[in-house]
Amino acid sequence: MATATVTKGLEGVVAANSGICWIDGYAGVLAYRGIDIHELAQQSTFEETTYLLWNGRLPSREELAQFSDKLVDARRVPSHIFDLLRAFPKNATPMEALRTAVSALSMYDPAENAVDHDSNLRKSFALTAQFPILVAAYDRIRKGQKLVDPDPSLSHAANFLWMLHGEKPIDAASRTFDIALILHADHEFNASTFAARVIAGTMSDMHSAITGAIAALKGPLHGGANEAVMKMLFAIAKDGGDPVDYVRSLLAQKQKVFGFGHRVYRTEDPRATHLRRMSEQLSRESGNTKWYEMSRRIEEFVKNEKKLNANVDFYSASTYTTLGIDLDLFTPIFAVSRIAGWTAHVMEQLDDNRLIRPRAEYTGPEYPVRYVPIAQR
Amino acid sequence: MATATVTKGLEGVVAANSGICWIDGYAGVLAYRGIDIHELAQQSTFEETTYLLWNGRLPSREELAQFSDKLVDARRVPSHIFDLLRAFPKNATPMEALRTAVSALSMYDPAENAVDHDSNLRKSFALTAQFPILVAAYDRIRKGQKLVDPDPSLSHAANFLWMLHGEKPIDAASRTFDIALILHADHEFNASTFAARVIAGTMSDMHSAITGAIAALKGPLHGGANEAVMKMLFAIAKDGGDPVDYVRSLLAQKQKVFGFGHRVYRTEDPRATHLRRMSEQLSRESGNTKWYEMSRRIEEFVKNEKKLNANVDFYSASTYTTLGIDLDLFTPIFAVSRIAGWTAHVMEQLDDNRLIRPRAEYTGPEYPVRYVPIAQR
Repeated sequence: MATATVTKGLEGVVAANSGICWIDGYAGVLAYRGIDIHELAQQSTFEETTYLLWNGRLPSREELAQFSDKLVDARRVPSHIFDLLRAFPKNATPMEALRTAVSALSMYDPAENAVDHDSNLRKSFALTAQFPILVAAYDRIRKGQKLVDPDPSLSHAANFLWMLHGEKPIDAASRTFDIALILHADHEFNASTFAARVIAGTMSDMHSAITGAIAALKGPLHGGANEAVMKMLFAIAKDGGDPVDYVRSLLAQKQKVFGFGHRVYRTEDPRATHLRRMSEQLSRESGNTKWYEMSRRIEEFVKNEKKLNANVDFYSASTYTTLGIDLDLFTPIFAVSRIAGWTAHVMEQLDDNRLIRPRAEYTGPEYPVRYVPIAQR
Repeated sequence: MATATVTKGLEGVVAANSGICWIDGYAGVLAYRGIDIHELAQQSTFEETTYLLWNGRLPSREELAQFSDKLVDARRVPSHIFDLLRAFPKNATPMEALRTAVSALSMYDPAENAVDHDSNLRKSFALTAQFPILVAAYDRIRKGQKLVDPDPSLSHAANFLWMLHGEKPIDAASRTFDIALILHADHEFNASTFAARVIAGTMSDMHSAITGAIAALKGPLHGGANEAVMKMLFAIAKDGGDPVDYVRSLLAQKQKVFGFGHRVYRTEDPRATHLRRMSEQLSRESGNTKWYEMSRRIEEFVKNEKKLNANVDFYSASTYTTLGIDLDLFTPIFAVSRIAGWTAHVMEQLDDNRLIRPRAEYTGPEYPVRYVPIAQR
């Protein structure tokens, strides 16, 4: 029987044990395997962070080299999947393309149903290496551009920018993107990760869990938020008016201003700190400070007016735009990073599995309602 | 901050209000919108039950006629989707095909991102009508058979058997399958439905939510269980020994016997009652009583030995086999039914949405673990 208290949205409800991510929402702390996100953002790489998420500790120099090599070796996508991407209708969004391609990828996996740790780890390497290829390939296909092969000499972050733009990225761009990947790599039981764990909890396979995670990330309340932030900045720029007036009028109409507040953090989202700095730095280096300055003014206004802090999505919008990344790639890029955390969580779930099956508090017509034959209705 | 009590698998935790499905696990009651499943199984149809799940009450004769017509009209799948099914590698399982095809279908939806009630209702008609087409089509494609067009004169259940086998089903088969569809149409916050709600909770679209639900249903602890039951029956038949000896030896080896026990029911699963009766009836009519009798003996043994009741999966296995349905279509057929409930839950979730985002109880290395530079590791 269901207990009487309903916690809508499971807010504050503990769904399982997990040793991957530590969040202290009151102190504004985010840590992967105990290591503060600030230290990782300043000193680590996406490859090392992924090792940490999957293995629970930092690698030795040799372990990291082997790990990175394995990730480079896994940069392979069956040619049928590229055919699939080419066959999609041209208005298909990159998230639909990614979700469908990842679902199809299981058909080419040598042990699709296997959910033991070693099989899951192999699939985690494959998917983490394949995500940037799929995202870059679909973007080039829809633009009628030739695909760019992965470059094994480039890091995970730099290789993505290379495959996307067909130009070797400058170091500042690669490093900025690398940090963005580190910051988004995991966030405990966020909705997409939780969806992945619910799916994996039925002993379904890794590709199923990750397909469901992409499906959840696609929602505007989750991965879609930074896209919504950038749409607002574009609308303000087009409108030509003052950013603060624009946001004030949004608030007056009781509309949501995306990029502020967070279910878990009661203080500043620690990821926002780095994204603000990166957005500022990049905007100065590129000579285009427009988006950063607009963002800064909106942040100050919303903080004063609504006591809401900027979250991870707010400054990633201007950062990605300054990196030359299209609006509708923001969420796919979130997935390119979060796949590290999703796979870590699926492995953790399946290493000590329990079906995730909550109850509902029934609010419908009181049982028993009689079945009235149709002639008597 | 997380609370201290962890309820692994969210067992007994109430995740939200819902007016769709009432389960009393102790009394063995299942009701859709307050109407007992026994009354529905005996007197309703899948079409009427779907109306009930979506609208909260039984339809008038005229409403039901309109509803059924709309469902018949929605029996359309874009030709590109059939091309997609044909392009899949021949070893792709029907669940991988269904998951991928449903993910791709969103690309052809006229309002893919819309999550208002009317858009969701339109998509619910489309998906409910398309599921049987996709499952039947992929089965015929992989067998090298010509596709069979839907027949608008046939009911939802009969039309599926027609498209699958290319022969008009006898009435007993259609009615049996119709009842199976009614029995599986909803089951409150089971893992696949819950996955759909977690995904929809981010305001993601209907196709995303349903793709995730298929992904969860695919797991052997969920939709895969009746397939596992039938595999056991086949293994026993091949082995030639006594069914009870076989199951006794499984239990002695501490292996799971699929088709018994349920997270929610503490007494007999009310759906099992009907499936047992249908399995018996069909087996007598077809003159093949082997699977039914084997099932009956196993049920009695497990009940005496382990005090476990047969669940919905146990007798659906022999029922589907007697209907001439392949083993690996059992779970897709579950989806053909459950789509009615999944869509009802996604509509309910989005009509009064709250992001579903629980917390984890952190069990990893204590914060803060220092980031040690690689040269010092």
